[in-house]
Amino acid sequence: MTGGRLHDAAVRGFASDNYAGVHPEVLAALAAANEGHQVAYGEDAYTARLQQVIRDHFGEQAVAYPVFNGTGANVVALQSLTHRWEAVVCTETAHIHSDEGGAPEKMAGLKLLTVATSDGRLTPSLVDRQAWGFGDEHRAQPAVVSLTQSTELGTCYTPDQVAALAEHAHERGMRLHMDGARIANAAATLDVPMRAFTTDAGVDVLSFGGTKNGLLAAEAVVVLDPDAVVGLQYLRKTSMQLASKMRFFSAQLVTLLESDLWLRSAGHANAMARRLEAAVRSVPGVQVTQPVEANAVFAVLPREVTARLQKRFRFYTWNEHTGEVRWMCAFDTTREDVDAFAAAIAEEMAP
Amino acid sequence: MTGGRLHDAAVRGFASDNYAGVHPEVLAALAAANEGHQVAYGEDAYTARLQQVIRDHFGEQAVAYPVFNGTGANVVALQSLTHRWEAVVCTETAHIHSDEGGAPEKMAGLKLLTVATSDGRLTPSLVDRQAWGFGDEHRAQPAVVSLTQSTELGTCYTPDQVAALAEHAHERGMRLHMDGARIANAAATLDVPMRAFTTDAGVDVLSFGGTKNGLLAAEAVVVLDPDAVVGLQYLRKTSMQLASKMRFFSAQLVTLLESDLWLRSAGHANAMARRLEAAVRSVPGVQVTQPVEANAVFAVLPREVTARLQKRFRFYTWNEHTGEVRWMCAFDTTREDVDAFAAAIAEEMAP
Amino acid sequence: MTGGRLHDAAVRGFASDNYAGVHPEVLAALAAANEGHQVAYGEDAYTARLQQVIRDHFGEQAVAYPVFNGTGANVVALQSLTHRWEAVVCTETAHIHSDEGGAPEKMAGLKLLTVATSDGRLTPSLVDRQAWGFGDEHRAQPAVVSLTQSTELGTCYTPDQVAALAEHAHERGMRLHMDGARIANAAATLDVPMRAFTTDAGVDVLSFGGTKNGLLAAEAVVVLDPDAVVGLQYLRKTSMQLASKMRFFSAQLVTLLESDLWLRSAGHANAMARRLEAAVRSVPGVQVTQPVEANAVFAVLPREVTARLQKRFRFYTWNEHTGEVRWMCAFDTTREDVDAFAAAIAEEMAP
Amino acid sequence: MTGGRLHDAAVRGFASDNYAGVHPEVLAALAAANEGHQVAYGEDAYTARLQQVIRDHFGEQAVAYPVFNGTGANVVALQSLTHRWEAVVCTETAHIHSDEGGAPEKMAGLKLLTVATSDGRLTPSLVDRQAWGFGDEHRAQPAVVSLTQSTELGTCYTPDQVAALAEHAHERGMRLHMDGARIANAAATLDVPMRAFTTDAGVDVLSFGGTKNGLLAAEAVVVLDPDAVVGLQYLRKTSMQLASKMRFFSAQLVTLLESDLWLRSAGHANAMARRLEAAVRSVPGVQVTQPVEANAVFAVLPREVTARLQKRFRFYTWNEHTGEVRWMCAFDTTREDVDAFAAAIAEEMAP
Repeated sequence: MTGGRLHDAAVRGFASDNYAGVHPEVLAALAAANEGHQVAYGEDAYTARLQQVIRDHFGEQAVAYPVFNGTGANVVALQSLTHRWEAVVCTETAHIHSDEGGAPEKMAGLKLLTVATSDGRLTPSLVDRQAWGFGDEHRAQPAVVSLTQSTELGTCYTPDQVAALAEHAHERGMRLHMDGARIANAAATLDVPMRAFTTDAGVDVLSFGGTKNGLLAAEAVVVLDPDAVVGLQYLRKTSMQLASKMRFFSAQLVTLLESDLWLRSAGHANAMARRLEAAVRSVPGVQVTQPVEANAVFAVLPREVTARLQKRFRFYTWNEHTGEVRWMCAFDTTREDVDAFAAAIAEEMAP
Repeated sequence: MTGGRLHDAAVRGFASDNYAGVHPEVLAALAAANEGHQVAYGEDAYTARLQQVIRDHFGEQAVAYPVFNGTGANVVALQSLTHRWEAVVCTETAHIHSDEGGAPEKMAGLKLLTVATSDGRLTPSLVDRQAWGFGDEHRAQPAVVSLTQSTELGTCYTPDQVAALAEHAHERGMRLHMDGARIANAAATLDVPMRAFTTDAGVDVLSFGGTKNGLLAAEAVVVLDPDAVVGLQYLRKTSMQLASKMRFFSAQLVTLLESDLWLRSAGHANAMARRLEAAVRSVPGVQVTQPVEANAVFAVLPREVTARLQKRFRFYTWNEHTGEVRWMCAFDTTREDVDAFAAAIAEEMAP
Repeated sequence: MTGGRLHDAAVRGFASDNYAGVHPEVLAALAAANEGHQVAYGEDAYTARLQQVIRDHFGEQAVAYPVFNGTGANVVALQSLTHRWEAVVCTETAHIHSDEGGAPEKMAGLKLLTVATSDGRLTPSLVDRQAWGFGDEHRAQPAVVSLTQSTELGTCYTPDQVAALAEHAHERGMRLHMDGARIANAAATLDVPMRAFTTDAGVDVLSFGGTKNGLLAAEAVVVLDPDAVVGLQYLRKTSMQLASKMRFFSAQLVTLLESDLWLRSAGHANAMARRLEAAVRSVPGVQVTQPVEANAVFAVLPREVTARLQKRFRFYTWNEHTGEVRWMCAFDTTREDVDAFAAAIAEEMAP
Repeated sequence: MTGGRLHDAAVRGFASDNYAGVHPEVLAALAAANEGHQVAYGEDAYTARLQQVIRDHFGEQAVAYPVFNGTGANVVALQSLTHRWEAVVCTETAHIHSDEGGAPEKMAGLKLLTVATSDGRLTPSLVDRQAWGFGDEHRAQPAVVSLTQSTELGTCYTPDQVAALAEHAHERGMRLHMDGARIANAAATLDVPMRAFTTDAGVDVLSFGGTKNGLLAAEAVVVLDPDAVVGLQYLRKTSMQLASKMRFFSAQLVTLLESDLWLRSAGHANAMARRLEAAVRSVPGVQVTQPVEANAVFAVLPREVTARLQKRFRFYTWNEHTGEVRWMCAFDTTREDVDAFAAAIAEEMAP
C-alpha cells in the first residue's frame, strides 16, 4: 500500500506546537478546495475570500499575502518596510534573530539591532537602546521595531503596550512589525479581538501565523497600513514565498479565520499550558520562570532530572546555561497528555 | 458553513499545469500522515521514508531536501553549487531567468549567463558561448550549467544529450544542475527511468518537481553527487524553504514516487498534449511550433483568434512578438476537455 | 632607498587608459590638499568645493558623491535608483554586465536585462526588447535603463539620442543612468558641454569617471535629478565606497573639473586614437570595426599578426571569436607612441 | 589658480586619526610610482614589491590584496572565510558591527554575533557566549572570530591573548580574523614585530590598515593561512575593492612597510596619546576610562565641559549615556598640539 501511515498517531508530546499535525477542519477544507482548475498564484476564489476574512478581522485597509512559513513571512514583511540600508530593532530572543539561521541578514541584508529582555517583551526605553544614530551613515539606520506576539517566552503584550511601542516607533519615523507566529494564543489570553493589539494599536505589518495553530503550512504577511510598505507582491515572489497552487494555502487560512477555529484551538492550547503550569508548580524543586500567558511553560529543573525526563518525552532545553526548559502545548494536546507528563515530572523529581 | 467549496470543480483549462489541484491519492496521504506528533523540520518517519524512495529512484548516494516550491528548489540548489562570486549558464527561456522575478540574483547574488536557443535545449557549443573567462576576476566565474527537463518549451533532452552536457561541464570544472519541474513528463516521453538522464548521465543536483504533477506543494532538491555541494541543510533554512511540519511535504513526495503515480500522471498529461496537438494540426492556419515531447503544446495562430479564444478559455501568450501561445495539459485533463478545446479552436479559426 | 621608482617611466602602450598614471596637475593637487587636519568622510573644504564645481557643470540641482572606482560608482548609483525587486536594462557589452565580476548582482541583487547591439549603443526600440512585464511579479521589474557614454566600443551617443532614451524610459516609469567612465571623451568628440547630454537630456544619475582620464583613483555618483534617488549617503557607505580621507578624492575631481583639464586630457586621448585609426586604415588587411568617436580603436587583424604584435606591445583581444582587438589611447599617449605602434602594426602585417 | 589649497594646514585636532593627511614620504612615493604605463589591476612592479614586503613582515605564505578602505578590507576578508550561511563572532564595539553601516550584513549576508566587553577585547569565554549551535540549521553557523588590534577602545591584545583566541577558534573549526585598522599602534606598544601577534599567534586573515597611519587611502587583506580562504581575487572585485591603477595603492603600502615608517608613525601617535593621558590625569574631575595602549584616550568629563571644549576643538562623544569622549592622536600630532589641548581641558575644567 502506498501513501500509508508510518507513525504512531497516538503519541503526542510537549516539544513544540510544530510537532502537532493538521486540524481535521483544515484537512477537510483542502479537500473542498480541490478538483477542477483555479488560476494559480492567487487569482483564485479562496484567496479572494481570504481578503474578505482578513478585512473582517483587521479592518478594511488590510491586505493579506499568503506565504509558506514564518521565516518567509517575517523576511518578506521586513523587506517591505525597509530600504536596503536600514535595520530592525528586536529582542535577543526574537525568532528573526535566534531561529531563522540568519535569513534576514542573508536574504534581505537586514541588520538586526538587538536588546536583552527578561521576558521577551520590548518597551519604548528598550527600543531606545538601539533606536539612535538617525542620519549617521556609519550606522545601519533603525527603521523598524519588530515585536513577537505572543513572545518567544510565552508572554503577551497588552494592547496598550503595543500601542506605546507603535507611538514610540512612529514618532521616530520607524515602523512597527509584529511577528504573530502565535498571535491567536495572545488573543485568547488577552480576550480581545486580534485587531485590538494590531490595527488599532498601530502595528504596520503583521506576520500572521497559522501553522503552529493547526494548519498544514500557511502564514500570511498582513499589511495593516498600506502606506508603510512597498512592493510586497514582488518581494514575496523574489523571496521564493509565492505558492503556485495558492488556493490551498488561502483555504487553510480562510478555514482558520472565518469561524472561531483560530481562537478555539489557541485557547485550548493555552488552557493546557496553564494546566501543566498548575501541576508542576506543586512539584517541589520545579521553578516556573515565565508567566504562562500563551501555550508555553518555561521552567528550571535539575539537569539530571531533565536528562531522565528527555528519555521519556522529547522536549528542548531553552537555555543551556541555566538549565531552563520549554514545554509547548498544541491544539491537540489533551488533559490526559498534560496529566501524564506532569506525573512523569513529579516522578523524576522525587528524591 | 466554513471551509466550503468556493469554485466550480467541473471547470478545467489549458493555461497551466499549476491550475490543476491535488491528486486524490496525495490528499489521502496527507490524511494518513496526520494526527499525533512528529518531530518537526524533517526528523520524522515520512522524511525518512522519502530518503529511501529517492535512493530507489536515483541511486544510493542520493539525498533529498524537500522544499516548498520550484523557485525555492532552484535557488537553494544553485547556492549549494556555487561560491559567492560564481555564475550559472542557462537558456534565455530558463525558468530561473524568465519566471522567478530575479530571485537567483536577489536572494543568492547569482549572475545568470544566458544563451538563446530555438527549442529550449542547451548544447555543449551553446554552453561555450558563456563558459569562458575562467580565472578572470572581471568576469563572474561560470560554475554551473543549468538545464530544464522537460524544457520550458515542452521539449526533452535525451539521456545522451544530458550526458554530453555533464561531460562538457565537468571537463571545465563546472557542475550540472537540472531544473526538473516537469521531470516526470520527460521520463514518460523518453520511456526510461529518471535515473537514466540524471544520476547516470552525470547530473550533480536535481530540482525535483512535484507540484505541477499533482501535489499540493512539494518539490525537493535532490543531491545526486554529494561531493558537488556544500551546506544544503543551512541553505534551505536561510532560503526560507524549511517546512516545520515537514512530514506533510515528504508524504506528498513519497506518495508520488513510491508507486507509479508520478509516471501515470505525467504520462496522462503528455498523452493529452499529444491528443491536442493532433487535433490542432488538422486545423488550417494553426502552426505548432515545438515538438510535443511533454505536456505542452506551443502554437502560432492569428492574434484575433487568440483574443476570441481567450474569452472562452484562459491561456497565455508565450511570445508577444510572434503571437505564439502555450497550452498545457495536466494530470486531470480529460479527453473530453481536449476535444472541446480543439473544437473551439477550430471554430474560432473557421473563416 | 624606500618609496623609489620600480618601473621604466618611459614605457607606454595601448592596452588600457587605466595603464596610464596620474596627471601632474592632479599630483600637485594632492600635495596642496595635504597637511593639517580636515574632517573625514566628506565634511571638508575640498568636497564642498567639488559640489560647486559639479553644479557649474551639471546644474544647480546636481550633487556629487565621490567614490573609489567605476564599479563602485555604478553599483551605488543603480541601488539608489532601484527597489530590491527591480532590474536594469543595458547592452551585452555594458561594463556593468561584462566587466564587474557580477558585482551588480552580488552586491545589489540587481538583475541585468541585456540586449545585443552592433556598436554599443542602446536605442528606444532595443530597450523595448527588455522593458516589458511591468506589474508581473514573475519578471524582475525593469526600472532603469543604463547606457555608457562614451560606449565600451568607443562610440558616442548624441545629445538627441540620449534625450530619446530618457524620454522613452521616463514614459515607462523607468530612470536613466549613464555610466560615464569616459564621459569626457564623449564631450570632447561631441564638442558640447557635458551638461548637454546629461542633465539637459534627461539623465537621472551619472557615474562620473575620472580615473581613466588622469586621476589616481576617483569617480563620483552625480545625482542629476534628486527626485530619482533615495539613500545615496547610506548606499555609498554600505557599498564600502566612502573614503575616510575624502579631501584627497574630492581634490582630484576638483582639479579635473575646475579648469579644462578634463577636456584637454580627453581631447588629446581622442586625437591620438584618431591618429592611430588614420595610420592603420592605410595598412592593407587591418579592418577598423567601429567608428572612432572616443579614445578607442577597434580592429580586426589576422590572429598570427595579433600574436606577434602582442609580444612587442601589450593589448587585449576584445572578441576571441572574431579576433577583434582593442587599442586605447590615454591622456599621456604621444604622437611618437602612436606612430611607433602604427609602424609596428604595418611591419607585422607586411607579407 | 586650480588645484590650490583650500584649508588651513596649520590646524590639527584630536577627533580622529582619519582627519590627518598623508605622510610626506607617502606623497613622494606616489610621485615615484607615476609616469609611464603599468599594467592595471595589480600586475605591476609595485604590487609585486608589496608581496615581498608583506612576506618579510608576515611570513613566506602571506599574500596581500590591496583594497581601498577598512570596511572593504573587513568585508572582503570575512567573505573569504565564510560560506553563505555562516556568522562572525565579534564585540559590540567592533568596527564591523558599529561603524560600517551594516555593510557586512548588506554586502555579504553575514550575521554578526556580538558580545559585550568592558575594554574592547574578546576572550575565549566571551567567544563561547556566541560560539555554539554548530550543526543546527536554525542558527547562523559561527565560523569566524573577529578581533580588532588595537581595539576600538584603544587597548591591545598581547600575542598570548591572540594565540589563546586562535587556538580556541580553531578547536571549534572556526577561523580568526584580525581587523588591524590600527595594527601598527599595537605593535609599537607591544614592542614586538607584527608577526608575533598575527601569523605566529594563529591569525588566519588580517585586515591591514594603512590609512589611519599616514596613507592617503590603502588597506590590504593579508592572507596569513592560505588554506583558510577561498576566492579572494574574485571577492575583492565583486566587492568593488579592486583598484584599476593599483600601482598607487601598492606603492603607499610598500612605503609604509619597507622602512620603519609604519612603526615610527604609530609609535609617535601612541606617545602623543600617552602624553595627553598624563596631562589630563592631573586635571581634577577628568577620569581616563581605558588603558592608553595605542593612540586613543578615552575619558569622562562633565557634559558642560565637553560642550564648551567642543566649541574650541572638534572631537566625538563616544558614549552618549556616560558622557565618555574619545581623543585620537595621529602621526602628525605634535607635542605642542597636545599641550595646548591639555591646557584647554584644564582651563574648561577649572571651577
